[in-house]
Amino acid sequence: MQPNAALEALRTQSPLVHCITNYVAMNIAANVTLAAGGSPAMIHAPEEVADFTPIARVLTVNIGTLSAQWVESMKAAAAAANGADVPWVLDPVAHFATPFRAKATLDLLALKPTIIRGNASEIIALAGGSGSGKGADSGDNVSDAQSSARGLALYHDCVVAVSGPIDFITDGKQSVSITGGSDIMPKVTALGCSLTALVGAYAAVAPSFEATVAAFLHFAEAGERAGAEASGPGSFSVAFLDALHALQPGDLAETRISWN
Amino acid sequence: MQPNAALEALRTQSPLVHCITNYVAMNIAANVTLAAGGSPAMIHAPEEVADFTPIARVLTVNIGTLSAQWVESMKAAAAAANGADVPWVLDPVAHFATPFRAKATLDLLALKPTIIRGNASEIIALAGGSGSGKGADSGDNVSDAQSSARGLALYHDCVVAVSGPIDFITDGKQSVSITGGSDIMPKVTALGCSLTALVGAYAAVAPSFEATVAAFLHFAEAGERAGAEASGPGSFSVAFLDALHALQPGDLAETRISWN
Amino acid sequence: MQPNAALEALRTQSPLVHCITNYVAMNIAANVTLAAGGSPAMIHAPEEVADFTPIARVLTVNIGTLSAQWVESMKAAAAAANGADVPWVLDPVAHFATPFRAKATLDLLALKPTIIRGNASEIIALAGGSGSGKGADSGDNVSDAQSSARGLALYHDCVVAVSGPIDFITDGKQSVSITGGSDIMPKVTALGCSLTALVGAYAAVAPSFEATVAAFLHFAEAGERAGAEASGPGSFSVAFLDALHALQPGDLAETRISWN
Repeated sequence: MQPNAALEALRTQSPLVHCITNYVAMNIAANVTLAAGGSPAMIHAPEEVADFTPIARVLTVNIGTLSAQWVESMKAAAAAANGADVPWVLDPVAHFATPFRAKATLDLLALKPTIIRGNASEIIALAGGSGSGKGADSGDNVSDAQSSARGLALYHDCVVAVSGPIDFITDGKQSVSITGGSDIMPKVTALGCSLTALVGAYAAVAPSFEATVAAFLHFAEAGERAGAEASGPGSFSVAFLDALHALQPGDLAETRISWN
Repeated sequence: MQPNAALEALRTQSPLVHCITNYVAMNIAANVTLAAGGSPAMIHAPEEVADFTPIARVLTVNIGTLSAQWVESMKAAAAAANGADVPWVLDPVAHFATPFRAKATLDLLALKPTIIRGNASEIIALAGGSGSGKGADSGDNVSDAQSSARGLALYHDCVVAVSGPIDFITDGKQSVSITGGSDIMPKVTALGCSLTALVGAYAAVAPSFEATVAAFLHFAEAGERAGAEASGPGSFSVAFLDALHALQPGDLAETRISWN
Repeated sequence: MQPNAALEALRTQSPLVHCITNYVAMNIAANVTLAAGGSPAMIHAPEEVADFTPIARVLTVNIGTLSAQWVESMKAAAAAANGADVPWVLDPVAHFATPFRAKATLDLLALKPTIIRGNASEIIALAGGSGSGKGADSGDNVSDAQSSARGLALYHDCVVAVSGPIDFITDGKQSVSITGGSDIMPKVTALGCSLTALVGAYAAVAPSFEATVAAFLHFAEAGERAGAEASGPGSFSVAFLDALHALQPGDLAETRISWN
């Protein structure tokens, strides 16, 4: 499915996206998803996640602000997604930072995510490499994460996407790079987490590799437009939501994509 | 009390509003309440809610992002509100989506909310009807929820308010519709939840039916002004907070109200 | 260290700031910290805080939306900070409002914060005085909190900072007042909490008293610039983040500082 057809489908179907994400990201991730065309729902109680995931068209799991109880919810939701053939996206925020976080990530990986999205440091460390990340911000370049991403994709039989100035998306066999966005984006919190939610929204309406490419393209295009208007991170966020909403299928410029 | 007198009272008294709301809504609901004239406080620990509610002038309870512990807090706070003659507002977000959510809502209803605010799907389902909602977004029209709203209001002896392109507010005997707002509002997350907080702020200074009408009128007027300026959901949010703050009592146009 | 040198160091080093803050503040506090130059990480699970704090350059603890579990995390993180010689900042939001909150604050004070930041009502009550605060908003003037601040600073051997129209910062021996900001700031939620995070970011790169002065100066300057552009609380927030990011070391006007 081409990116423009994927956006068309997203707007027409407005799929229900079950998001378990961190407290910092919840509002902006919901707004990004809504602006782009999805219908997000943030639900995380262990008592209800397994009932809710099968109603949704996709699940996204982001480990930014973990707790023991939420790890249980994440695992229950991922298992319910698998049981109901609902695709699910994993965002392993700073998984290397503590043993608790590392363990949660391994448990989630065992539940076979459809798509993994992270920054370069996260993807390198997930593949067993030694990156320079400490917290939520990347300390490595996307180009240094490409082989890690390919290896992870093959090993876990999933799509792996690495965000950065030039994004990289692979399923282990085919890979693309995407240009665009704005250098102000790392100065706005939780945009990566929001992209994870958007990848989820697209994965509800398109096959996983094409969905990931379309979501990144939508993000890159909106980011570039917003960056051209913004005077800083505050006005960037405003213009970015406006652009995500304003973009039409024909605006997803495939010239941003290079096949590797 | 007329809407303009209610806004005057809100600005003069700046009442303390105890909000137990969801993680997505907390920031925007606090900003909406502050911009309009109230003083919001988000407090939810079971160890302290019952001490805090009686200090506040009103309590608002929104079940968006539930957990077992928060359900206990919500019930304790509602009971404390009743004990201290503090009015309280219930927002039963997607209460039909899971059994856990449905049970929590029934338990809260038994604690006799002063006002219930929801979207059409939520109000129809709350009255035992069969709506088309799945997540937090409505799948039904407000006009189809009017008889459900009237029935609920009579049965629970409370005010029931249904948000949508044309809002509907009833206490079972008297009912009004309110026009205004903007069609961009459903593309901004948690505005309904924020309206619940604003209804709470007004309920601290005016009788419950008049308070609900005034809050919806303030929201509708600010939404219409912001919609006229906005280029999308990002700029809408900014203009909306500015408008909520800028509106003066004389700006609450009673021509938006029709009595049903 | 002069304020301009502190900002220079903040931008160059981009220190990792471990924030345990409330749900209302998480997004804006992270955005304020990022815009100014730090690298915030919100991590709060008892299972991981003590592993994470020593990796960070500073810890900030804000008790806005407490729970029993988070109190344990806050204490564990503060103890880990002390063990690793990491400075830490305490923001005792509405600590007087409930016994639960008061007890948590006393436990945290016993762990010897490097810096305490609050509003006038919070600082007066922390020193045992009787203020007029009820919730998160101050009911007292900064000038009435000066002797409380000095007493607290001497007793706890820390820096105490009081936010308001004219801020006051003291270590018990030396004290300064800082002018600036905008009268729209109390109408935007969680700006005080965000200032706490910014104080933390500066405390990672400068001695505690100078760091606090530099953070308040940065905030006051950005607030004044944003206030001059804004039409209300929505546009203020946008302009404020832009200004925090745009300000250069030479813009931190020491003429805002008066020594008391």
